[in-house]
Amino acid sequence: MSLYSEINEQPERIKSLLSSQRKVVEKIAAEIHKRDVQYVFLAARGTSDNAGRYANYLLGAQNGLPLALATPSLFTYYKQPPKLKNALVVGISQSGQSPDIVSVLEEGKKQGCATLAITNEPKSPLTQNADFVLDIQAGAEKAVAATKTYTTELMSIAMLSAALSGNKKHWQELSKVPGWMKDVLKQDKVIAQAAERYRYMDQTIVLGRGFNYATAFEWALKLKELTYINAEPYSSADFAHGPIAMIEPGFPVLAVAPKGKVFDSMLEMLKRLRTDISAELVVISNDKRALSLAQVPLTIPADTPEWLSPLVSILPAQLFAYYLTLAKGYNSEQPRTIRKVTETK
Amino acid sequence: MSLYSEINEQPERIKSLLSSQRKVVEKIAAEIHKRDVQYVFLAARGTSDNAGRYANYLLGAQNGLPLALATPSLFTYYKQPPKLKNALVVGISQSGQSPDIVSVLEEGKKQGCATLAITNEPKSPLTQNADFVLDIQAGAEKAVAATKTYTTELMSIAMLSAALSGNKKHWQELSKVPGWMKDVLKQDKVIAQAAERYRYMDQTIVLGRGFNYATAFEWALKLKELTYINAEPYSSADFAHGPIAMIEPGFPVLAVAPKGKVFDSMLEMLKRLRTDISAELVVISNDKRALSLAQVPLTIPADTPEWLSPLVSILPAQLFAYYLTLAKGYNSEQPRTIRKVTETK
Repeated sequence: MSLYSEINEQPERIKSLLSSQRKVVEKIAAEIHKRDVQYVFLAARGTSDNAGRYANYLLGAQNGLPLALATPSLFTYYKQPPKLKNALVVGISQSGQSPDIVSVLEEGKKQGCATLAITNEPKSPLTQNADFVLDIQAGAEKAVAATKTYTTELMSIAMLSAALSGNKKHWQELSKVPGWMKDVLKQDKVIAQAAERYRYMDQTIVLGRGFNYATAFEWALKLKELTYINAEPYSSADFAHGPIAMIEPGFPVLAVAPKGKVFDSMLEMLKRLRTDISAELVVISNDKRALSLAQVPLTIPADTPEWLSPLVSILPAQLFAYYLTLAKGYNSEQPRTIRKVTETK
Repeated sequence: MSLYSEINEQPERIKSLLSSQRKVVEKIAAEIHKRDVQYVFLAARGTSDNAGRYANYLLGAQNGLPLALATPSLFTYYKQPPKLKNALVVGISQSGQSPDIVSVLEEGKKQGCATLAITNEPKSPLTQNADFVLDIQAGAEKAVAATKTYTTELMSIAMLSAALSGNKKHWQELSKVPGWMKDVLKQDKVIAQAAERYRYMDQTIVLGRGFNYATAFEWALKLKELTYINAEPYSSADFAHGPIAMIEPGFPVLAVAPKGKVFDSMLEMLKRLRTDISAELVVISNDKRALSLAQVPLTIPADTPEWLSPLVSILPAQLFAYYLTLAKGYNSEQPRTIRKVTETK
């Protein structure tokens, strides 16, 4: 089963990416520093767009860079691209082939911006207009649902952030990610068992905030692709502005709530969901207060720093989606309707 | 019933906003032109965030302005706001009270950016750090689910875009919006009847693209707030990158597909959904090819230009949500769990 082995391959892929690409990333960061970059303009779709959501928080918090997620149709259908003065234009794509993402980088290059491609295919169309290429080196990904290309994209972004800030402590923390990943994968049997409980779940919502807003989106996407569940991701703040109305007693809510600066706000929401509304909770965390509210608590290592927690917390989420796919009797390798490379304009 | 009367009030509110605020908007546009604005940094939540999605496409396509949607937690919980050099910082909030949105404008002001508040409460905290205030003049909105404040926010953004570009044709088109709105409201009985069919619908997805990406989000939000349906919005492109896998025969899909530059891509997706997957379709459009694919076609005027179609196409969507609320026996004025003013950090 490719999906299962690709999930389990992640600690090794991340370890090798870190050692082989550090110098490349530091060189790219040095070149970016030479340009007058005032913000990042990032184009991606699907799983790669979720990696872009991580970049949105990380580059903002650690590198002071505002980030705009591109609206590719302005470049393709409307042919009215905005003026990208002083932007670093970034395209993220596993295959490097989606025409809309390629066209954003092309326009960035045409307008004289610095351009960066983050991809698993360094000879793809995406890299043709890239000043810099970050090769995520995930190896061939055979399962249609992306797993290791997601975490290697996150790692590439985290390395770029560390290189841009030149923060040595961050590089030390990065080196611990493979070990944390191995730790969480040990919960394999617990997660397989827990997935049984959700055999007949047909809809859910997934909550995350800050750095793990990305994790909520990616967990929801895996569930939609693999188990065909209507799984909608939210920040806990947006969720409070209306959608919380739809939660009834027993409604299943999945949440990513590791320790960190947004933890208190997530905990408050989890208490409200469990205590006031009697929702069902699956919680990924390293804080007992959050885990104790859950019918299904999934643990990540206690010392995972918040900024790297998305790399670790997505693994139990991937396993949860995988085992739920099996419990529901679906095909984990080739979901219906979708293909590996989606070419949208 | 406040919700119903507020929906029907929209043509008049829009008409009066257009005549009373044009000069104010033109003055703001002139001031913005004096600054070296390279991109827009916009903070909003809920319905106002959907108005922000409209601004993302409109200011990009018509004014060449890239737009970044703010991540307010960087300003509040993380206290690591990005450097906003050369940004126009915009906050949109009906009440002008949500602390996270207020804090983004405050930081923008502190960093010396031009700041703009778009609000229904011109004396609210949001305007304290605003160089410019756009008063949407919607009048008191009593229903918890926002309707007229959404369309007046859209209108304010559309007026700002027309003022920034100085395009006379656009001002002429703006003056026709109230008439188009009145036209679509005539379908009231048809929509009331159509809503019956979805009495037992418990989940759906809502598709839109380009300018109407915002409409898809806002339609979905009304359904979640009022009918407690798990309604997830997508661009048709993102939808093709994975989530389409969850659609089974009979799964209800709502779509906003007026004529315009993204129409062909929406039509292709609607054909795929209806012909290949036998999905159920509710379609808002002014093109017969899209309408003829729908079990429930909802029409907007033939001559609505694409850039203003979000102001018109949301009205049948609001009525649909209202009548579905009645069909399901819920309270349209005071949905469970949520309040009118949501104060998130």
